[in-house]
Amino acid sequence: MASHEPATLDSVAARAGVSRQTVSNVLRHPARVADATRERVLAAIRESGYRPSLPARQLATRRAHAIAVRAERQQDGISGLVLDAFYHGLAEAGQDNGLRVVLYAQPADEATELEVIDDLVQTGAADAVVLTATSADDQRPAYLSGSGTTFCAFGRPWGHDDDPHDWVDVDGAVGTGLAVEHLLGLGRRSIAYLGWPGDGAEPSTGSDRRRGWLEAISAAGTGTPLEVHSVNDVAAAETAVASLLSGADAPDAIVCASDTLALGAHRAALAAAGVGIPATVVGFDATPVAAALGLASVAQPIDQAAHLCIDLLTGRFESPDRPARGVLVPPVLRLPT
Amino acid sequence: MASHEPATLDSVAARAGVSRQTVSNVLRHPARVADATRERVLAAIRESGYRPSLPARQLATRRAHAIAVRAERQQDGISGLVLDAFYHGLAEAGQDNGLRVVLYAQPADEATELEVIDDLVQTGAADAVVLTATSADDQRPAYLSGSGTTFCAFGRPWGHDDDPHDWVDVDGAVGTGLAVEHLLGLGRRSIAYLGWPGDGAEPSTGSDRRRGWLEAISAAGTGTPLEVHSVNDVAAAETAVASLLSGADAPDAIVCASDTLALGAHRAALAAAGVGIPATVVGFDATPVAAALGLASVAQPIDQAAHLCIDLLTGRFESPDRPARGVLVPPVLRLPT
Repeated sequence: MASHEPATLDSVAARAGVSRQTVSNVLRHPARVADATRERVLAAIRESGYRPSLPARQLATRRAHAIAVRAERQQDGISGLVLDAFYHGLAEAGQDNGLRVVLYAQPADEATELEVIDDLVQTGAADAVVLTATSADDQRPAYLSGSGTTFCAFGRPWGHDDDPHDWVDVDGAVGTGLAVEHLLGLGRRSIAYLGWPGDGAEPSTGSDRRRGWLEAISAAGTGTPLEVHSVNDVAAAETAVASLLSGADAPDAIVCASDTLALGAHRAALAAAGVGIPATVVGFDATPVAAALGLASVAQPIDQAAHLCIDLLTGRFESPDRPARGVLVPPVLRLPT
Repeated sequence: MASHEPATLDSVAARAGVSRQTVSNVLRHPARVADATRERVLAAIRESGYRPSLPARQLATRRAHAIAVRAERQQDGISGLVLDAFYHGLAEAGQDNGLRVVLYAQPADEATELEVIDDLVQTGAADAVVLTATSADDQRPAYLSGSGTTFCAFGRPWGHDDDPHDWVDVDGAVGTGLAVEHLLGLGRRSIAYLGWPGDGAEPSTGSDRRRGWLEAISAAGTGTPLEVHSVNDVAAAETAVASLLSGADAPDAIVCASDTLALGAHRAALAAAGVGIPATVVGFDATPVAAALGLASVAQPIDQAAHLCIDLLTGRFESPDRPARGVLVPPVLRLPT
């Protein structure tokens, strides 16, 4: 029977035969409520026309029930984060935990980005931030830790272990190790590395990927490690690999730090194969480009990483003083079909 | 001089020497305030430590100052919307207009999606929605029009001109027309079309792209139109084009409805070229895959489309009864480098 009184938390609870707290849990933390109970409460909400006001709830709980994440400016489009999948994973895991995901456009620099984050958090538009694309010279984590802003980084605290904070990252060294293992299985014996400038010097995504390659070929004992470096650009990578393949000790395989580099390496390898110097290329990020070229490539478990970011943040909301936690997830090697 | 009284809208206005309404405009519609005035007000806000509470403002204005957009489940990753760019464009244009962008994860079906949208709007989490991936049998636009929900579709009201609503779309027919023009310029004279099943029957993205090809080759008078159709899958497209190229009247060029189809066509064309039947392939979406294969491809102006969606929504907020408006933006042909 429809009532003309506006529905309230109490009238919904009475209709569903549960406590007011249970109705509240269904709205804020649906994953915590048993399926049958949640269904009953949701039916009561639908039947009564109850609409909890988000702004009122935000004022009452002093929480935005939202997290912010950056919408990246367009990169080369080949490698880097497969952000569509990351956004979907955050939105999905967020919904399961009563958290909305708010996008902010990538600002011109880190200082401006920190102003944007401060504004989102201090005006009550977001409770926390998922930081993407962290690096060794990143000022953002230390600033946010210092200002008491809740955040989770997608990326390790490269060389900043004195600034403990929550993070999730993909284990790049495991990925390039899998690439070497795959190439050894194909009978390759001189497996080179094509990385970015500076890989191996400072702690970084590139150094991590290089380390996995180096450890795997060292363990295999297949001879002197060969490596070249190039900025993340197809033409530059092609030039670097062409030079490597024209040398006296040309390798028979190349593990690349990205699919952009792998595309350049693939072009150089095609040319070298034409003059009798074949080399197998393996990429990193398992992009459609690698698939289109028939290259094996390391696939990051982006959806899993997004869900883990939400897990760490919800854990942090419940236990603000919990020690910082970091989670490394292993990638897999995607073979060409 | 810092005060110990908490800053208010009035104290900020007094400090900046402007009206309370101007401070409010800087916060809600920054693009409407002259640059110098905006800078002065922002400085006053910074100096005074004023932090307008978003939830309080939402309650006061009965507006969320946010729009919702769907985070897509992962597709094949080659063609389709380049959503990263669309999200960035929405977030950027939204920020310029005092609107946040909230993501919701793509639900299992349209009915569930409409529940999610109702919930976002009725709880005050979003004022409006940007609908993506509209189609002829899409139930969402009519439902949202009927329920009085403010929305802008990225995609035309295919065959539903009786349901007027705001939309932005890319003119696919112009794109395939540019592809034909490019191929005629290269001296191709038998330009076939590789489309999706059903292209040409009902109004759809595919029918629109096919129409542009058909009109351009008809205008050029280069002979009988040849076309094949395939689901959006590389292997299926390769099979379809291999069959086309092995026929007696093999074309010397193929315009494709997507880069996924173009990749299949490219593979079939490589094989046919090996036996003396060369054909030039042009794709659609200008993805990194087309660039990697050295194919020309039609590029959608995604950033412009995102900005136009925000323009239409902000116009709609100001004039709720304004007639529905649709904007078609022309794509460009991206040539291989």
